[in-house]
Amino acid sequence: MAYDVIIIGGGPGGITAAIYTVRQRMKTLIITKEYGGQMSKKATEVCNYPGFPKIAGTELIQKFVEHLGSCEQGFIETKFTEIQKIEKPADNFTVITTEGEKIEARSVIIATGSDPRPLEVPGEKEFIGKGISYCVTCDGPVFKNKNIAVIGGGNAGFEAALFMLNYASKIYILEYGPAPKADLENQEQAKKSGKIEIITNAKVKEVKGEKFVKSLVYEDMIGKKEKNIDVQGIFVEIGHQPATALARGLVDFNERDEIKVEFETFQTKTPGLFAVGDVNVGKYKQIVTAAGEGCKAALAAYECIKKLGSKNEN
Amino acid sequence: MAYDVIIIGGGPGGITAAIYTVRQRMKTLIITKEYGGQMSKKATEVCNYPGFPKIAGTELIQKFVEHLGSCEQGFIETKFTEIQKIEKPADNFTVITTEGEKIEARSVIIATGSDPRPLEVPGEKEFIGKGISYCVTCDGPVFKNKNIAVIGGGNAGFEAALFMLNYASKIYILEYGPAPKADLENQEQAKKSGKIEIITNAKVKEVKGEKFVKSLVYEDMIGKKEKNIDVQGIFVEIGHQPATALARGLVDFNERDEIKVEFETFQTKTPGLFAVGDVNVGKYKQIVTAAGEGCKAALAAYECIKKLGSKNEN
Repeated sequence: MAYDVIIIGGGPGGITAAIYTVRQRMKTLIITKEYGGQMSKKATEVCNYPGFPKIAGTELIQKFVEHLGSCEQGFIETKFTEIQKIEKPADNFTVITTEGEKIEARSVIIATGSDPRPLEVPGEKEFIGKGISYCVTCDGPVFKNKNIAVIGGGNAGFEAALFMLNYASKIYILEYGPAPKADLENQEQAKKSGKIEIITNAKVKEVKGEKFVKSLVYEDMIGKKEKNIDVQGIFVEIGHQPATALARGLVDFNERDEIKVEFETFQTKTPGLFAVGDVNVGKYKQIVTAAGEGCKAALAAYECIKKLGSKNEN
Repeated sequence: MAYDVIIIGGGPGGITAAIYTVRQRMKTLIITKEYGGQMSKKATEVCNYPGFPKIAGTELIQKFVEHLGSCEQGFIETKFTEIQKIEKPADNFTVITTEGEKIEARSVIIATGSDPRPLEVPGEKEFIGKGISYCVTCDGPVFKNKNIAVIGGGNAGFEAALFMLNYASKIYILEYGPAPKADLENQEQAKKSGKIEIITNAKVKEVKGEKFVKSLVYEDMIGKKEKNIDVQGIFVEIGHQPATALARGLVDFNERDEIKVEFETFQTKTPGLFAVGDVNVGKYKQIVTAAGEGCKAALAAYECIKKLGSKNEN
């Protein structure tokens, strides 16, 4: 028998959607590699999810998971795996796991978030795990008393740098544009620290090292020359790629491969298929916005299958 | 000097907006009659704000208020009053309080929520406070061992009825349409209780009594006859009227007087003027959606005044 809804992804958007579909008595399957999404890898504490002035990302996601666990259990199942493809051969959707299992559902909510975008410069791949990292909470402590560079002057970059104040002796933030894009609060904190140096108009060219990273080469785009900084660690924080390949054929994308949605219901161009949180084209990507979107898509999915249900009865 | 933003309303949408504008170092004034909005009057516990499996509305709003209090205080002021009008005589907005005070801001976020919609039948006004109520948490306990009617078969009506299980001996829910509109979870709980009777196709005609309410007259729209039920209390839960009059002239409304917005930024037709939560035309009105919308409008307001700022510099 088909599920009423399959929710793909176990971050704040996916879990909130599940809380609401279960409340609507929809037979719900949530499929995720693990709970938490980016939240469990967040460098600094979460200070902007209303109700929790300051909380570790892992702890907040744990509270979301417990919340879902408190909902009536007859309506929810969880499967820990990944999805390779969503198809719609007929009225129902077919969701195909990486193991090849095919699962049917009347509606699908994609909440798969996004993965870190790589630098794509020489040396990057070779030094992954040897100085190159995309996760400051995972790898930060390794760089105690070392010099490090953070690539990217947005909030993620600044938050990574602020987190590394606990460990590194010197921190560079390299920003491609003429000015950092981070919140002013983050910029002020970085300035106050005295340990963070911000380099703007910097185009990363190469990562160098032997066994481990030894330095970073970048182009100063104003002075038009190559420069070299000695660092033992490099954290890449230049944005994320939405995990949207699974939906190809059923949805439209923008130039960043984000899924186009209608912003009231978060429905894609395929009726019954929704996309919430970082995977969609929305420009504000926060925990609380992902949660709000998950709620809206869940209620819209409920309306959608109720409509289909009554159509089938006629 | 003008504020960067005035946020009107202290419910989940307004407070979340303020948390975000303060993080953006915007000079913020939040104006509200009191904190909480509808949340502080909610009959049942809140079970669907992610992170808190079950929490009293008053307690949840308290957590929001504490969260805002934990933000840097140099950027936020609060004023406890009401607004009669928003004007835009030139570049800035002018917000006029009921006391006639005029306050200037570069952007405004309306988060004023909505007020209970009255029945508008004979007897209603006379018996307000004498059996007629719009707030079950406020007045519920008065009806211990009495018979009561709840008008409205949506979630609010069912939640009011479920709350009244603690007090009333018999509870009628009167629904105008052919079937209740509440979540199935709420409907099942009502059924299980054995104390709640649901009357559909019921059009309320009159409230009768002497000093206090004694009965309710309704038309059975199928049988086409008037019926009478003996009740000592009547809770009106037929929806809300958005508190949007203050924005007249600057925004467009739908037929329910809700403010039209663009759903990505929640901007109204007037640049720099935003509307979030129950006041806007969005069909999903939940605590978490109001919070998500507050966040989006705050970030959009920030972009908006940044753009204006740089325009003024040129």
